[in-house]
Amino acid sequence: MIGINEHFLKLKAGYLFPEIGRRVRAFKQAYPDAKVISMGIGDVTQPLAPAVVEAMHRAVDEMGRSETFRGYDDGGVGYEFLRQAIVENDFNARGVSIELDEVFVSDGAKTDTGNMQEIFGLENVVAVADPVYPVYVDTNVMAGRTGPASGEGHYGGIVYMPATAENHFVPEPPKEAIDMAYLCFPNNPTGAVATKDDLARWVEYARENKAVIFFDAAYEAFITDPAIPHSIYEVEGAKEVAIEFRSWSKTAGFTGVRCAYSVVPKQLKAYTKAGEAVDVNPIWRRRHCTKFNGVSYVTQAGAAAIYTPQGKKQIQQTIDVYMTNASLIRDALTKLGYKVYGGVNAPYLWVKTPEGVGSWEFFDRLLNEAHLVCTPGAGFGPAGEGYVRLTAFGLPNNVREALDRFAKL
Amino acid sequence: MIGINEHFLKLKAGYLFPEIGRRVRAFKQAYPDAKVISMGIGDVTQPLAPAVVEAMHRAVDEMGRSETFRGYDDGGVGYEFLRQAIVENDFNARGVSIELDEVFVSDGAKTDTGNMQEIFGLENVVAVADPVYPVYVDTNVMAGRTGPASGEGHYGGIVYMPATAENHFVPEPPKEAIDMAYLCFPNNPTGAVATKDDLARWVEYARENKAVIFFDAAYEAFITDPAIPHSIYEVEGAKEVAIEFRSWSKTAGFTGVRCAYSVVPKQLKAYTKAGEAVDVNPIWRRRHCTKFNGVSYVTQAGAAAIYTPQGKKQIQQTIDVYMTNASLIRDALTKLGYKVYGGVNAPYLWVKTPEGVGSWEFFDRLLNEAHLVCTPGAGFGPAGEGYVRLTAFGLPNNVREALDRFAKL
Repeated sequence: MIGINEHFLKLKAGYLFPEIGRRVRAFKQAYPDAKVISMGIGDVTQPLAPAVVEAMHRAVDEMGRSETFRGYDDGGVGYEFLRQAIVENDFNARGVSIELDEVFVSDGAKTDTGNMQEIFGLENVVAVADPVYPVYVDTNVMAGRTGPASGEGHYGGIVYMPATAENHFVPEPPKEAIDMAYLCFPNNPTGAVATKDDLARWVEYARENKAVIFFDAAYEAFITDPAIPHSIYEVEGAKEVAIEFRSWSKTAGFTGVRCAYSVVPKQLKAYTKAGEAVDVNPIWRRRHCTKFNGVSYVTQAGAAAIYTPQGKKQIQQTIDVYMTNASLIRDALTKLGYKVYGGVNAPYLWVKTPEGVGSWEFFDRLLNEAHLVCTPGAGFGPAGEGYVRLTAFGLPNNVREALDRFAKL
Repeated sequence: MIGINEHFLKLKAGYLFPEIGRRVRAFKQAYPDAKVISMGIGDVTQPLAPAVVEAMHRAVDEMGRSETFRGYDDGGVGYEFLRQAIVENDFNARGVSIELDEVFVSDGAKTDTGNMQEIFGLENVVAVADPVYPVYVDTNVMAGRTGPASGEGHYGGIVYMPATAENHFVPEPPKEAIDMAYLCFPNNPTGAVATKDDLARWVEYARENKAVIFFDAAYEAFITDPAIPHSIYEVEGAKEVAIEFRSWSKTAGFTGVRCAYSVVPKQLKAYTKAGEAVDVNPIWRRRHCTKFNGVSYVTQAGAAAIYTPQGKKQIQQTIDVYMTNASLIRDALTKLGYKVYGGVNAPYLWVKTPEGVGSWEFFDRLLNEAHLVCTPGAGFGPAGEGYVRLTAFGLPNNVREALDRFAKL
C-alpha cells in the first residue's frame, strides 16, 4: 500500500500568498471598479534589458539552425561562458576567488534554497530568522527535519532567531549549537543588511561549531553602500562553512525567465555519523546532475548578457527605478509618522503598523480603505506581527498613487 | 556538527555517461585525427521547428516591453494556455479526460521523475525494470529508500524486474507486493513498447495492491502503431493509480530548451500509516510550488507552438528524420547478423553483442576499430549485459557513415 510522506501533512494549510490572493479576489468581486494597487508580492514590473532581449533573440536563432543548435547543457551545471562571467564579475571583481566548478547554474534560488538541505542529514538542527522566507522552513518540514507546528506557527526542532528592531533585524548566532543556518541579506522581508562584522561573527560561529551557513544573497544587487558585503565570501574563511545563493530574478527582471546559481565551495566539508569529513561539492554535483538537466540555453545566453558593459548599464537603470520607488515610499511613510525599516540597500520595506493594529488587520484596512495590497508581517513568522512588508518593485506611477492614498488614510 | 546525508555515499561512483566520456576522451587524445561518431547519448541533433522559433522570438519581444512583460508564472504550475493545449492535444484527442489542474509544467522529465518519489513515504517498496534509466534508482537511493549496492549493482530493498528478450522487455507485475513501480514505455534503453493489455495488467495490479505507477511516457511521440497506447490513462481506471511524465526533449528537440510536464490525477490516493487516504494531487502541488517557481515564459510559449497546426507538421518531419535513422540502423545491423530490438515505435535500439562479448568489451571494440560510440547495456543494470544501446537521434549523414563502418568491422 502506497504510503504518503506524512511530513507534508505537518505543513500549515494557509500559506501566506494564497491567503492574500483570496482576500484580494473577494474585495475585487465586491468592488469591481476599485483600482487595486499591489505593493505586496515581490514580483518585478520593468521589462528585460535590451541587451538581454538581443542575446535571447540571437540564442533562439541559433537553436533554429542545424549548425548552431544546442542540446543538453553538458552536465547540467551551466555553460562555461556563463559561469566564467559569474566568477569574474560577481566574485573576482570583489576580490573573491571562486572556481568554475564551484558554480552551479539553476532555474531559481527558490529551487536551490529548497533543495540544498537534501544533501545533509535529517539529524541536523536548523536555525532560521523569525520573520523568515517560508521556503527555508517548509522544505525542512517536508524533509522531516522538524516536529509539528505550534499554535503560533513555529515548527518543533527548528531554532527561530527573532529579528527585531532591537537587533536591527540581524540575529546574532544562537547560544545553542545548531548545524544549518539560513541567512538572507539584504533580507526578505525586513530589508535589513548585514555588515562585514555581522557576517564575520556568523562565519566564526560556523567554524567553531562545524555548522553550515546557507547564505541567500538574492538581493545583493540593491546594495549601494560600499561597506556592505555582497557575498559572504568577502569574509575570510567563509568558503569553509558557507553555501551562497544568487538570483537574477530581481537583479535583471528574471522572475519569468528563471535563472539563478549556487556556489558550493570545494573547501566545505560535512561529516558522517562516524565523524569522517566528506567533501560537499561533489555530493551537490551528484544531486544537481541526477535530478536536474540544466537551464535553457536561451535563458543562459540572456543571463550572460547581464554582464556585458551594455547589460550592466541597462540593469543598473532598472535597479535605479526600483530604488527610487523605495526611497519615495520610505520618505513618504516616514513623513506620515510610520516607522519604516529597510528600503536602503534593499528592495523591501518593513513598516511598523500603527499602535495596537495587527498586521492582518492593517492589511484589511489598507485593502478596504485605500485599495492597496501589502504583505502582513505575521505571514513570515510570529516576530513579524505588528509589521507589513512593502516592495519597491511596482510601476513608478502606481507607487506615487499608492503613496497619495496612504496620505489620505 | 553538520551531518551529510549518508544515503548519497551509497551511490556508485562510476556513473555510466561520465565513464563513457572518459573512455572517449582518452581515445581522442590518442587518435586526434579520428572522426568519432556518437550513437550513444540520447541527445537530439535537429534544430527547433520554425513555429517554435517564431513563438519564442515573439515571447522574447513581449518580455522586452513594459506592456507585455511577464513576471512569475502564477503558482508555478504552467501557463493556462500551455496546459490547455496539453489537455486537448495529448489527452482529449485520444479520448482521455484530464483536468487543467492535474497538469504540472516543469523544466524536465528527469526533474519530475526524480522528485516525485519525495511526496511518498520512505517505507514504500520500489520496483524498477532491469535494465533501467538510472535516475529512477539513484533518486530513491538518495532519499534513503534502499540499502547499499551489491557487487553486481543492485541496491538492497529495490525489486528489480528483469526485462529480457523472453518477456519482450516488458516485465509482468511482480509476485510480491510493491508500492511504487517505475514503468517507461516506449522504453529507454530497450526501445520496447507496451500494449494496452500489458498496461492493463499493471493497472489491475496497482489497484489490487494500492500501488502507484510512475509512468514515463517521454518517448510516446515516436509511436506509429495505432494500437499502442501513448498514455497509461488510455487504460480504464489508471487515473486512480498512475502518475504520468511527458517531455518535449525528444519530441520537439527541447533537450536544450527544458520543458516537460507531469499529470497527477485527482483520483490518486496515498495512505498514512494509520490507513487514512490522502489526495496526492494537492500534496504534489504544495511540493511543486514550494520548491519550484515555474518555467520560463519564453520556453512555455515555444512549447505551446508545438501544438499549432504548423508546429505539429514540423515536429512530425523531425520525428520522421529520427525514425528513418532508426529504421536504417535496424535494417543494416540485422543484415549484418546482429539481433536488434526496438527502433520501431521508439527512438532506441537495443542490440545484442556478438556471442561471448560483454557490453563494455563491445563498446571498446566499436570505439577502437570503428570510432563509434554506443552505450553499454550493462550500464543500465545487470540484465543489460550482452547488449548495447544505440539511439536514432544522430545526423542522417553520420548515421549512414556509422553503418558503413559497422559493415567493415
